[in-house]
Amino acid sequence: MNTQIFKDAYAAYLPMPTQLDPHLQGALHHVLKNPGNLIRPQIVFQMAAAYGMSEDSGMELGIALEYFHTASLLFDDLPCMDHATERRGTACVHVGYGESSAILAALAFINRAYALTWRAISAAPPERRRSALAYLEHHLGVGGLLNGQSLDLNYATLPHTRQTTDQIAMGKTVSLIRLAIVLPALIGGASEGELRLFDRVALFWGLSYQVLDDLKDTLQSAAETGKTPSRDSALDRPNIALAIGVPSAVTRLRRLITLGDKMLRRLVGLQPEIAFLEKLRSNLLREAALVDQNSCTARGAVA
Amino acid sequence: MNTQIFKDAYAAYLPMPTQLDPHLQGALHHVLKNPGNLIRPQIVFQMAAAYGMSEDSGMELGIALEYFHTASLLFDDLPCMDHATERRGTACVHVGYGESSAILAALAFINRAYALTWRAISAAPPERRRSALAYLEHHLGVGGLLNGQSLDLNYATLPHTRQTTDQIAMGKTVSLIRLAIVLPALIGGASEGELRLFDRVALFWGLSYQVLDDLKDTLQSAAETGKTPSRDSALDRPNIALAIGVPSAVTRLRRLITLGDKMLRRLVGLQPEIAFLEKLRSNLLREAALVDQNSCTARGAVA
Repeated sequence: MNTQIFKDAYAAYLPMPTQLDPHLQGALHHVLKNPGNLIRPQIVFQMAAAYGMSEDSGMELGIALEYFHTASLLFDDLPCMDHATERRGTACVHVGYGESSAILAALAFINRAYALTWRAISAAPPERRRSALAYLEHHLGVGGLLNGQSLDLNYATLPHTRQTTDQIAMGKTVSLIRLAIVLPALIGGASEGELRLFDRVALFWGLSYQVLDDLKDTLQSAAETGKTPSRDSALDRPNIALAIGVPSAVTRLRRLITLGDKMLRRLVGLQPEIAFLEKLRSNLLREAALVDQNSCTARGAVA
Repeated sequence: MNTQIFKDAYAAYLPMPTQLDPHLQGALHHVLKNPGNLIRPQIVFQMAAAYGMSEDSGMELGIALEYFHTASLLFDDLPCMDHATERRGTACVHVGYGESSAILAALAFINRAYALTWRAISAAPPERRRSALAYLEHHLGVGGLLNGQSLDLNYATLPHTRQTTDQIAMGKTVSLIRLAIVLPALIGGASEGELRLFDRVALFWGLSYQVLDDLKDTLQSAAETGKTPSRDSALDRPNIALAIGVPSAVTRLRRLITLGDKMLRRLVGLQPEIAFLEKLRSNLLREAALVDQNSCTARGAVA
């Protein structure tokens, strides 16, 4: 897929008034010049096409979700949250432009993202608009992303169980995947049955990616030195492989992928145009296979 | 006007899921228990009634704007911005619950505010919905509030002129007054002519309140000790009385009030039900008279 159109849209969809304060402008330009892999807008765009949304609306919704994601990273990186200094191979915005400019830039992306979302759904019938906005509010708000982030930051004070790590993954990882997959289908008029299946695919994939990340963190440290505690363990960060052990986490990963596959097969049967999602599923499988391999190597090294 | 219904709505319109992280929940409860004077929702509610919006929609829009305002205060108070420790007679949220919880709470209010705004405008015809959302986006975003806040924070690096202090006041003070006065009229179907006049009233009042605040800061210090520099001067904060001098600022205040009066008289002629705005204008006049008095006393004390 040609990713240049997404890069162009990412850079162009945030209007920059001429009288903008140079500090805020600098921060915004820095972010716009350093986009991520833009996987979300690509998923949204193709989902939107499969369900008959216009190309313009698909792109608006895709960039809107990417801007929400961008804003969440700007906040995550702040000293009072993850205290990161680098992002996408360059200095974090708050390092280069100050914390207040990073916060105001994040709010600018959020404000624009809501406006673009509204524009993308404006042509849909009232009932679908209502459902789409309720779905967005829930997954971005205290029922989703914000709660996930808060639990994540306060993990040290919470029980280190699978329930807690799942709740965090549901809020932080699953929410945005859900929005990218379900929202365009919902706006485009997918059936209740399809929407339920898409919601489950997003759930299983989101949880899979989180288990994968946690396994990588745990296994890499073990493979590298045979005894270095993982970064998550050292910082007391949520990690399901630490909470339930590597073997159980690997079993869980396989189970989540199987469940996602089942839903996806049914969906492709109902709507062949969403077969592009199988490519994402292949990436997931490849990563899972790598981790599985490492898991044996690492267990060998530790033993 | 019975303010209890606004207090109740302010406390009730933010849904709190049962599985919410206790840190974020604590921060949100703290804010909801300490509302401000709720003048914005009262204006919105009465404007909405004058222009035939339903009571429910008027209240939703009013609380939405108050939530946007609340979020802006949570951010303003952060150490990287105004570094405040007290707000509304109690400790700031970031002091009691940490910076990250204050930020996540602010984002929860913003997310809810957009959802309430959408709900409030959903019954309006498409063209009005579009105009209302564009007006909201502009005044909350880089064209309004965010730019005002950025200029305000970086004032020390900018020319200390009336142009700069005006730009800051337009962003920080005028934007939210504009939204409270113009949005309900726009959604309710006011004519282009009325909307232009309301926009001007909001502009003149917003600037008046800013000049008043700046004069109070400058004159109080002078009246109290005869020589203490004002707080704004000591901290190098934007202040129009410092930028153009007290006498010019007093002249400007009188002029702004006269201009606002002219627009308001025309509006009451067009739509008698907005006469409630005259009460706000009386408050403004009373405050201006007090400052005028202090201005003579203070100049006496300094002389």
